[in-house]
Amino acid sequence: MDNNYYMRQALIQAQKAFEEEEVPIGAVIVLENKIIARAYNQVERLKDCTAHAEIIALTSAFNYLGSKYLMDASIYITVEPCLMCAGALYWSKIGTIIYGADDEKNGYKRITKEVSPFHPKTKLIKNLLQDECRLLMQDFFFRKRK
Amino acid sequence: MDNNYYMRQALIQAQKAFEEEEVPIGAVIVLENKIIARAYNQVERLKDCTAHAEIIALTSAFNYLGSKYLMDASIYITVEPCLMCAGALYWSKIGTIIYGADDEKNGYKRITKEVSPFHPKTKLIKNLLQDECRLLMQDFFFRKRK
Repeated sequence: MDNNYYMRQALIQAQKAFEEEEVPIGAVIVLENKIIARAYNQVERLKDCTAHAEIIALTSAFNYLGSKYLMDASIYITVEPCLMCAGALYWSKIGTIIYGADDEKNGYKRITKEVSPFHPKTKLIKNLLQDECRLLMQDFFFRKRK
Repeated sequence: MDNNYYMRQALIQAQKAFEEEEVPIGAVIVLENKIIARAYNQVERLKDCTAHAEIIALTSAFNYLGSKYLMDASIYITVEPCLMCAGALYWSKIGTIIYGADDEKNGYKRITKEVSPFHPKTKLIKNLLQDECRLLMQDFFFRKRK
């Protein structure tokens, strides 16, 4: 399986969020070619602004592995993580972060500018399948405004 | 009750973390002069690097109130929040953040520099009872190094 495959799995999660009227962001965590966590944004359902896809996926992966580090794992996220999620990913020491669409309003880059918030050993791949990831977000906010 | 009283309540939480061999950071959330959430760092116990005192306290307060915003509440944290917790506090729109000791290694200020990561309406009070808050941290790391 390649990066595109896993990002499409994250998109399936984002689609679930969309259907539940949550901001449509999804994430999967992969270790040794196996998906060990899948999650989507559940802020509205849980009335908990920390219930972002990435945080739920991380906690799920920690529980699955019984480890608080994910050095050999990769996370696929449909949208650029926010500052909270970037901070959580830092603590996890996750091996690779792959995200889809940029988030100019809430993405970590708005605050951190030149300084990377991630662990020095974490690899970062930006804008994979960004059009599909962004379109789902645009569609969501377009419908909300109507 | 004044700010010092509530920070001492957060210190009681931090002391619990210390006794459980967790990095000794505690937090309480106060609404209308009532403590609605108390928490301490549980990263080791839960093997979950998102289980910081602030995140646990926030989720607890959201559950208690059935609301995902905390505009009228205050959080007392014994140590400067990390980037993840700063991001979570941003989302919560919490009214006031009061913290004790600075954290030069992991505090949000290391990454965000001049840009505030918090909500524009959030008030920030730094370094309340900072000596007591810092001594607990220093004692913890001194013992760990032995």
